[in-house]
Amino acid sequence: MGRRALLLLLLAFLAPGATITLRPALKTLGSLHLPTSRTSRPAVAKNYSVLYFQQKVDHFGFNTAKTFKQRYLIADEYWKRDGGSILFYTGNEGDIIWFCNNTGFMWDVAEELKAMLVFAEHRYYGESLPFGQSSYKDSRHLNFLTSEQALADFAELIKHLKRTISGAENQPVIALGGSYGGMLSAWFRMKYPHIVVGALAASAPIWQFEDLVPCGVFMKIVTTDFRKSGPYCSESIRRSWDAINRLSNTGRGRQWLTEALHLCSPLASQDIQHLKDWIAETWVNLAMVDYPYASNFLQPLPAWPIKVVCQYLRNPNISDSLLLQNIFQALNVYYNYSGQAKCLNISETTTTSLGSLGWSYQACTEMVMPFCTNGIDDMFEPRLWNLKEFSDDCFSQWGVRPRPSWITTVYGGKNISSHTNIVFSNGELDPWSGGGVTKDITDTLVAITISEGAHHLDLRASNALDPRSVLLARTLEVRHMKKWIRDFYGRAGKQN
Amino acid sequence: MGRRALLLLLLAFLAPGATITLRPALKTLGSLHLPTSRTSRPAVAKNYSVLYFQQKVDHFGFNTAKTFKQRYLIADEYWKRDGGSILFYTGNEGDIIWFCNNTGFMWDVAEELKAMLVFAEHRYYGESLPFGQSSYKDSRHLNFLTSEQALADFAELIKHLKRTISGAENQPVIALGGSYGGMLSAWFRMKYPHIVVGALAASAPIWQFEDLVPCGVFMKIVTTDFRKSGPYCSESIRRSWDAINRLSNTGRGRQWLTEALHLCSPLASQDIQHLKDWIAETWVNLAMVDYPYASNFLQPLPAWPIKVVCQYLRNPNISDSLLLQNIFQALNVYYNYSGQAKCLNISETTTTSLGSLGWSYQACTEMVMPFCTNGIDDMFEPRLWNLKEFSDDCFSQWGVRPRPSWITTVYGGKNISSHTNIVFSNGELDPWSGGGVTKDITDTLVAITISEGAHHLDLRASNALDPRSVLLARTLEVRHMKKWIRDFYGRAGKQN
Repeated sequence: MGRRALLLLLLAFLAPGATITLRPALKTLGSLHLPTSRTSRPAVAKNYSVLYFQQKVDHFGFNTAKTFKQRYLIADEYWKRDGGSILFYTGNEGDIIWFCNNTGFMWDVAEELKAMLVFAEHRYYGESLPFGQSSYKDSRHLNFLTSEQALADFAELIKHLKRTISGAENQPVIALGGSYGGMLSAWFRMKYPHIVVGALAASAPIWQFEDLVPCGVFMKIVTTDFRKSGPYCSESIRRSWDAINRLSNTGRGRQWLTEALHLCSPLASQDIQHLKDWIAETWVNLAMVDYPYASNFLQPLPAWPIKVVCQYLRNPNISDSLLLQNIFQALNVYYNYSGQAKCLNISETTTTSLGSLGWSYQACTEMVMPFCTNGIDDMFEPRLWNLKEFSDDCFSQWGVRPRPSWITTVYGGKNISSHTNIVFSNGELDPWSGGGVTKDITDTLVAITISEGAHHLDLRASNALDPRSVLLARTLEVRHMKKWIRDFYGRAGKQN
Repeated sequence: MGRRALLLLLLAFLAPGATITLRPALKTLGSLHLPTSRTSRPAVAKNYSVLYFQQKVDHFGFNTAKTFKQRYLIADEYWKRDGGSILFYTGNEGDIIWFCNNTGFMWDVAEELKAMLVFAEHRYYGESLPFGQSSYKDSRHLNFLTSEQALADFAELIKHLKRTISGAENQPVIALGGSYGGMLSAWFRMKYPHIVVGALAASAPIWQFEDLVPCGVFMKIVTTDFRKSGPYCSESIRRSWDAINRLSNTGRGRQWLTEALHLCSPLASQDIQHLKDWIAETWVNLAMVDYPYASNFLQPLPAWPIKVVCQYLRNPNISDSLLLQNIFQALNVYYNYSGQAKCLNISETTTTSLGSLGWSYQACTEMVMPFCTNGIDDMFEPRLWNLKEFSDDCFSQWGVRPRPSWITTVYGGKNISSHTNIVFSNGELDPWSGGGVTKDITDTLVAITISEGAHHLDLRASNALDPRSVLLARTLEVRHMKKWIRDFYGRAGKQN
């Protein structure tokens, strides 16, 4: 198995939500089978100011005095100087405007919490590039892309806001984030409890490290999503890999596959692993965005997209060629729901965008998340987690080697019960929930489970089709946030 | 006022306990007025193993894979694999063997707590040099000398011990330290509560930053110590500065001063500020080590050395020359209690030793502690805290500029109430208590005050002359540590 292919596949899994931010638009054309009208609700135009804050490139050393401009957004329409609060989105691996537009929950609760909304961009993403266009040049320039530096950015930014915005100084700040951003929110509360009174960590797989959870749990959940979304659906996918293997043995078979899958470029024999990785990544992404309404998070998609996909995958016991034709229909739901794509491009993976480039580096340094499959508990080809191979791939790509136990050392792994005021929310459909906190740890480290939720559904804007479980989750989340705010003002009152 | 002189003076203040570790022995000779026999108790030979652990030079970046050997000491005579504990000394700015020998408290309680003792050397001190002899070469080599890196070293070392020492894995670890080491202990518990169940932070001035306490509090306490130790003592010192100024106006006066103070080198006019700084530093050091029994911490000294010093300073209303002769007698108590010194060397300040070199860098980067005097509330010449001047001095000495608010940003300043299980002990005689936590913050963040204690007296070995207040303090400290240990085993029991 090609090492590069392995790396690509892992990076896809490793990127909670990363795949998307800067994915180049698919070439538009016609010829496909789905409705051409976009049914996803367009992002509501948000009213915010775009601002920049001068950050130190290195918070943890003094040899360089270099600074860069961190971008952040502020929306204060509902903010009250009297008794208000500050909701601080701890930006993750992508353009902050995209996250801002996809975190409708914060906008929905702003009035109730009298809240100023702040969205802080994560260094090395979007416009917040410590060394401009050279930021990704080499491991020397990438040296300051770590979660610790990002948290320090957030701390400095909040101090700056409190210093400079009249009325903000004596208000409680709550961290919010989803996916890697949710991990950052939780860690921010753990490491800087003097700066944020609490954190809402949505779909934050803080335990997807070392052996804290079984390495197979992620793909098992993906598989369950497909199994439950249509008869024989996961079984069809499980059988598809061998069908691809058999068909791709000959040049003629590969040509047939190229045509059947409407690929933009002809398949060579060395592309087959990459093809399978790309397909697997598609199923993973679908599991992440299996939302109850039409949406446009990773791609324009119908409501419950896995159900739609599974309509094409009801019969596993057919010929290889028929099975692969069905697989194409299924892929097409994801890549061409708008009906505009002329062909499917297996090179258009996440790694061509800045966002996923950065995450690939982070996965090769701190964010070492072991994944594996066995083909029995999941619908994928068996693959062991191979740290040595992973490390070698990282070294050849970035010139760095991962430190797989560092995140546990620095953030505590499962031993976090001494912290307080963190809500961990997880959707049961979301494969990342496998590495998340899904049971209460203490009275103030609480888990909220959204039975019908995919990847941080709760952070999305309210929708008429929202299932009850997410409505309840949001209600609980607001209740916790209100309590943190009340406690903050209670303490402040005592001191006065 | 010379900027270098200012820097020297400040660095002395800035170094809690730093001055001492590597101070070159004074040249021995005779001619002075005090007993020649050493009355200080010789350090008891401790039985420990010296070990080394391979640490990453940079925990917070991945560009360098360099490592260095961190030295640590282990003593396990009283350690019990069954129900035992680990007392972990968070090494501060100096040779770890010296700290080990001056932290008798840990040895005294080892049996009662069935404890393994670990003393971890702080990077860039003693033998734990990240770049060997080049470690202090320039700001590039010094870049990894920060408290955060030191805490990460401690975390990695403890994980290593738990991995490799059979029986240690499931035992509670308690951090202990004094002075800067006490700050590290407290911060270690705040940042790594999953690794240590609690911390004893002795004489830890965690609030001697920014404007968390008045900049004059330190010298005010020094002054109080002298005022209370003899009639007109502080007044005599207060008057001495002008006497020096008047006498040093002429060459003849400076020659007289050189002789009267038994200085090793003749005073030039540009030395006068330095002379006064050196004298002031002596009073500061005496305040730190004003112990109730003869000791040899900074220098061999009698019991209650300030009282001895003040015997020479009972009459402020005398001529300049008589006053300065008395000042000499007082200085001589500190520098020549053994009676072996031929002359006093005002160049032998802390900055010639590695320990204080390192602290000087730390004071110029993270550990920015504002100090000032006004000559009214204290017995010193008035001096404002001048950050600009301080920063310029740092830049010319080290090529770095301090970040005065960073420590507050990263460790929380006064807003630390969400943490737990830290005992802050302070001696009322200790000038560093002015920047310490001297009132309970919560039920588990408690302050212990030792009315008759100087700098971390409680960490010193038990002594027949120990005042009641330190006996009580140690009793309380052991009680807290036992509770942390009990709670740890209680939680572990529940999980099984």
